[in-house]
Amino acid sequence: MDLVNIGILGLGTVGGGTAAVLSRNAEDITRRTGKTIQVTMAADKDPSKIEEFSQLGIKVVDDALAIVQDPEIDIVVELIGGYTIAKELVLEAIKKGKHVVTANKALIATSGNEIFAAAAEKNVTVAYEASVAGGIPVIKAIREGLAANKISSVAGIINGTGNFILTEMRDKGSDFADVLKQAQELGYAEADPTFDVEGIDAAHKLTILASIAFGIPLQFDKVYTQGISTVQIDDVNYAEELGYSIKHLGIAKKTETGIELRVHPTLLSKKELLANVNGVMNAVLTLGDAVGPTMYYGAGAGSEPTASAVVADIIDIARTINVTDTTSKVPALAFDINTLDSTDVKSIYNIDTAYYLRVSAMDRPGVMADITKVLGDHDISIEAMIQKEATNGDSNADIIILTTSTIESNMLDAISAIEELDTISGEVVMLRVENPDK
Amino acid sequence: MDLVNIGILGLGTVGGGTAAVLSRNAEDITRRTGKTIQVTMAADKDPSKIEEFSQLGIKVVDDALAIVQDPEIDIVVELIGGYTIAKELVLEAIKKGKHVVTANKALIATSGNEIFAAAAEKNVTVAYEASVAGGIPVIKAIREGLAANKISSVAGIINGTGNFILTEMRDKGSDFADVLKQAQELGYAEADPTFDVEGIDAAHKLTILASIAFGIPLQFDKVYTQGISTVQIDDVNYAEELGYSIKHLGIAKKTETGIELRVHPTLLSKKELLANVNGVMNAVLTLGDAVGPTMYYGAGAGSEPTASAVVADIIDIARTINVTDTTSKVPALAFDINTLDSTDVKSIYNIDTAYYLRVSAMDRPGVMADITKVLGDHDISIEAMIQKEATNGDSNADIIILTTSTIESNMLDAISAIEELDTISGEVVMLRVENPDK
Repeated sequence: MDLVNIGILGLGTVGGGTAAVLSRNAEDITRRTGKTIQVTMAADKDPSKIEEFSQLGIKVVDDALAIVQDPEIDIVVELIGGYTIAKELVLEAIKKGKHVVTANKALIATSGNEIFAAAAEKNVTVAYEASVAGGIPVIKAIREGLAANKISSVAGIINGTGNFILTEMRDKGSDFADVLKQAQELGYAEADPTFDVEGIDAAHKLTILASIAFGIPLQFDKVYTQGISTVQIDDVNYAEELGYSIKHLGIAKKTETGIELRVHPTLLSKKELLANVNGVMNAVLTLGDAVGPTMYYGAGAGSEPTASAVVADIIDIARTINVTDTTSKVPALAFDINTLDSTDVKSIYNIDTAYYLRVSAMDRPGVMADITKVLGDHDISIEAMIQKEATNGDSNADIIILTTSTIESNMLDAISAIEELDTISGEVVMLRVENPDK
Repeated sequence: MDLVNIGILGLGTVGGGTAAVLSRNAEDITRRTGKTIQVTMAADKDPSKIEEFSQLGIKVVDDALAIVQDPEIDIVVELIGGYTIAKELVLEAIKKGKHVVTANKALIATSGNEIFAAAAEKNVTVAYEASVAGGIPVIKAIREGLAANKISSVAGIINGTGNFILTEMRDKGSDFADVLKQAQELGYAEADPTFDVEGIDAAHKLTILASIAFGIPLQFDKVYTQGISTVQIDDVNYAEELGYSIKHLGIAKKTETGIELRVHPTLLSKKELLANVNGVMNAVLTLGDAVGPTMYYGAGAGSEPTASAVVADIIDIARTINVTDTTSKVPALAFDINTLDSTDVKSIYNIDTAYYLRVSAMDRPGVMADITKVLGDHDISIEAMIQKEATNGDSNADIIILTTSTIESNMLDAISAIEELDTISGEVVMLRVENPDK
């Protein structure tokens, strides 16, 4: 029977999970592939990891480059993360003619174009299912399962930490800062939570999803990224009252005027399945011209959920490891790398969406009329409008408005005009409202 | 460039959709595969179809066998449906060395073992993504995306007609018969709705899902099948009040005491995402040992959603059509056909689940105590119990009980004992309660 030799770079959470799953389900994996898939080597700097995994019969070294250059290794599994060393190792593995599996979203989003070009040159596969939405096989679903479709939009809850925080804010009525602290204590958020709460991690993943959905190059630097650290509990509560949840969505759309790539807090009607994805769970909703909406849900992080995706990639590569006809393999970015679409990514000012506004207004006659006049002057229609009673002797009342769709620059103009009204105090809070299964 | 010739058998809803999608997205499909995929021939008995599709440059014949035997055809797409002629044509296509794509769940569920054995013998692929849950790529997700996992359970809303009827009953408060009539008028239910409402269609699909999830042979005759025609509006309303939706689920579980294969109305907590899948939409939830719960959602029927899955299969086959190493291809039932697991399917009496009971009892002291004593005598614990006021001068009141898990035969014994109580009138209504993401 064919033996496929795996070398794992990095024995952290996901590396350990990958070794565990490959070992525990080895017999089933052989029933699936007709091959024996074996972790032959692994690399980690931590002496305790070297000792722990050596006892499992794995040759563990502290120099990842030794694995990449070892002629016995068929598939290099990069689980170090980050941009620098990981990139060098992946490019070196490709150069040595090895297939690569990675969970590294930052690397793929920022250097994927270069990496996939190098891999195509050497006729090797670089697989990255684990880089988006953890264990959910959404890369495979989009690249292969929906291959019949022109996909027009992708919307995803693709950062579990952010979704946990927003869910807790809603369920407990707590402020962002309090929930973040609790999430850090529970281990759901990092000590430095910037990547998660400011949307950078989601932007990495959205970059990848957009590329395989639309057949465009990876363009991380074009993603508009707004985090959840500015989401206020008042808006979470008002949204709830109006039948909406606030979710941190990655949204990619292909429109007649260009491509939209954006990550931001978003109101979703609770009638939408995506609005009911809570806690640390992830989900990705796509719209295809033939199939309509489909959604993929599951754990977006964690040791074994992520290992599930890593091992699925290993199995796919192992299965076809003797096939030399590269045209028989699924292209890295779903489409032939030489046929990628160069449609421009739109500025955030040119997107077209619906909005939620919170205006702090003096509680006196005429103020509603003033606001609706400004919106009317900008051709913006009102879907719903509620005025909340002023409380605690506050002379101001919150006015909440849901609008129909308009171009963002027009909405920003209208907001400036509202803020200039004498009856308005402070800044208008603006959030975008989406309906991603239509 | 390689040309792949498709022959479509049956130009009905899905056949027409398949031709339309292949034509509309031809350019993208070539960017994905490097091949030209062309509907070269098609067969239908209807002269108007022959005329319509001939005008598209397709050679349309009335004899499906002529396509199966035509040396030019690479992939036969069987969209005739049913058991008899479809089976002959599929077996003949395999014999001629052609790959087959089918949307025929009845055929795969009842004759799949024979068909896949024949295909293995001839080194051809028989693909059937469209046979379960229409456009949702759930076969691919389970066979490939979750290949790292031991899957322990699958639970699916896999019949859109049934889900539409149950959703309407709940939303409109209407009886089954009224909603069925309306569904027939809307074209969501057939004139003879037996396959959909009595669970046969769902049982076909469940048979397929269980086989690829657990690596067992297709065993349609072992599926316990109960339809939704006996679901009463009172129970829909009581379930709602308790925070549950009644869904028609296909459930497959691998337990220590054997395999469970069952289709029946099921109470699901509304906190579960699956309980929020409404209308004609389908969804399948699986539990894997590494990944945990994942769910796949989308349109389970319709012309282009089903065509989306048919065309995805065609693309997969076309991509690897020059690859002769069959070990490089995904096995038809996810695992090597010679290694399928022969674990027994359990009788419905031996399943272990929680229950909803509705008891019609005289409205007098002691009746609750009588019922709880019977349940206690059978070691059945009560999760929730509510008594509804007797109305309209009715001397009986409904008592609703949610129990913890027990073996079904034990529950049936307890129900017999409850029905023998003097204070109880009529039969006890029993429904099963599941928690499929745990």
